[in-house]
Amino acid sequence: MAQNIYDNPEFFAGYSQLERSLSGLAGTPEWSALRALLPDLRGRRVADLGCGFGWFCRWAREQGAVEVSGYDLSDRMLGRARSMTADGAITYARADLETLELPEASFDLVYSSLAFHYLVNLDRLLEQVHRSLAPGGRMVCSVEHPIFTAPTQPGWRVEADGRKVWSLDGYQVEGPRVTDWLAPGVVKQHRTLSSYLNLLIRLGFTIQHVEEWQPTEAQIAARPEWTDERERPMFLLLSALR
Amino acid sequence: MAQNIYDNPEFFAGYSQLERSLSGLAGTPEWSALRALLPDLRGRRVADLGCGFGWFCRWAREQGAVEVSGYDLSDRMLGRARSMTADGAITYARADLETLELPEASFDLVYSSLAFHYLVNLDRLLEQVHRSLAPGGRMVCSVEHPIFTAPTQPGWRVEADGRKVWSLDGYQVEGPRVTDWLAPGVVKQHRTLSSYLNLLIRLGFTIQHVEEWQPTEAQIAARPEWTDERERPMFLLLSALR
Repeated sequence: MAQNIYDNPEFFAGYSQLERSLSGLAGTPEWSALRALLPDLRGRRVADLGCGFGWFCRWAREQGAVEVSGYDLSDRMLGRARSMTADGAITYARADLETLELPEASFDLVYSSLAFHYLVNLDRLLEQVHRSLAPGGRMVCSVEHPIFTAPTQPGWRVEADGRKVWSLDGYQVEGPRVTDWLAPGVVKQHRTLSSYLNLLIRLGFTIQHVEEWQPTEAQIAARPEWTDERERPMFLLLSALR
Repeated sequence: MAQNIYDNPEFFAGYSQLERSLSGLAGTPEWSALRALLPDLRGRRVADLGCGFGWFCRWAREQGAVEVSGYDLSDRMLGRARSMTADGAITYARADLETLELPEASFDLVYSSLAFHYLVNLDRLLEQVHRSLAPGGRMVCSVEHPIFTAPTQPGWRVEADGRKVWSLDGYQVEGPRVTDWLAPGVVKQHRTLSSYLNLLIRLGFTIQHVEEWQPTEAQIAARPEWTDERERPMFLLLSALR
């Protein structure tokens, strides 16, 4: 089973206080870029893998999706997600993305935000995603960028001339990385960018867009500390067609 | 016009002594990975953009290509390429890839090795490549990897614990980078990985394979110093279908 870090009380308490938890989609800096990759959702069937508090599921309904299925491993997160809606067209299910089976040709969009980099067996899940999409359906996801997940000791270093540099190593060495983020011992899986892309291609997807997220000028004006994000990408956003 | 660094006597003298110049394709560590992306060349028409000494053009003929067109900006390199063959099916032409016009639907394969990262206007050239390919034709290229071209001061740093890390900055800041490689003032153009991919997709290509080259176990056994190449990728190899 995947590490269920979101049900760790310390992690959950920290995560619940993040802007992305309190303010929902608008509180996630990459949301407008991710949204730009989505199709028109009117009349569409949508799945969200790693739905968390259900912000995206509720938004998809507002956009006109007719059926929304949210999957998550965390009871705590699903509990809060269920408490925030009475909409019968949204279904939440507890599921381990490492073993989840999805119904065939049942979705027009499979969406996932910052979940795939926790999975050991992503090949298996994306095979499920491919078969669960109706012809012409789309998979849109975000993951932590491989440049961000690679280092054995991630972090910035300030050079003598004041430049901030990202200390990159281990890029080609795929596998687990243990970091202390909100709680000690959070395990992420590092994959190269080409591994993500070639896996999708091998499964029969057509790559439609690849985005290495960076803040907009307006975002940097509002949050000058985000200038650092120009030095190396933190998020990778992908859109692929079945 | 593109910087014609290969006709700089100092650069040319240095470049001529590299293993990739003396031993041809077998002297380039990434060749076997690049070769794996190529289609069967029997009966095919091939173009090589930035053909240098013509190693690939001659190899393509040995593989059964019926027509091979090599393009390069450097008179010195073309002179040597011409001196190495009397094959009438190989044509060498002096051309600036910044302004080259290619005939429509004339090639089954357009190949380019480590040339595109010198170009300011890659969009224009790849548009030409797309229209010059016959339907079902393929573009296979290598470039210096964006992680390799990004830094304002590229290089390794040895950490206190002995780890070698690549000092990455400027990844999102596309544009010229000036390095001293064989001669001072060599200008390369940094682009993000997503820029390369989205440009191809926008032009109508289907991405077929993306490879962030690393040495094989056998290569590392023969050249232990290449272990460093696991820390960050140096070359990006792409295959795309018209």
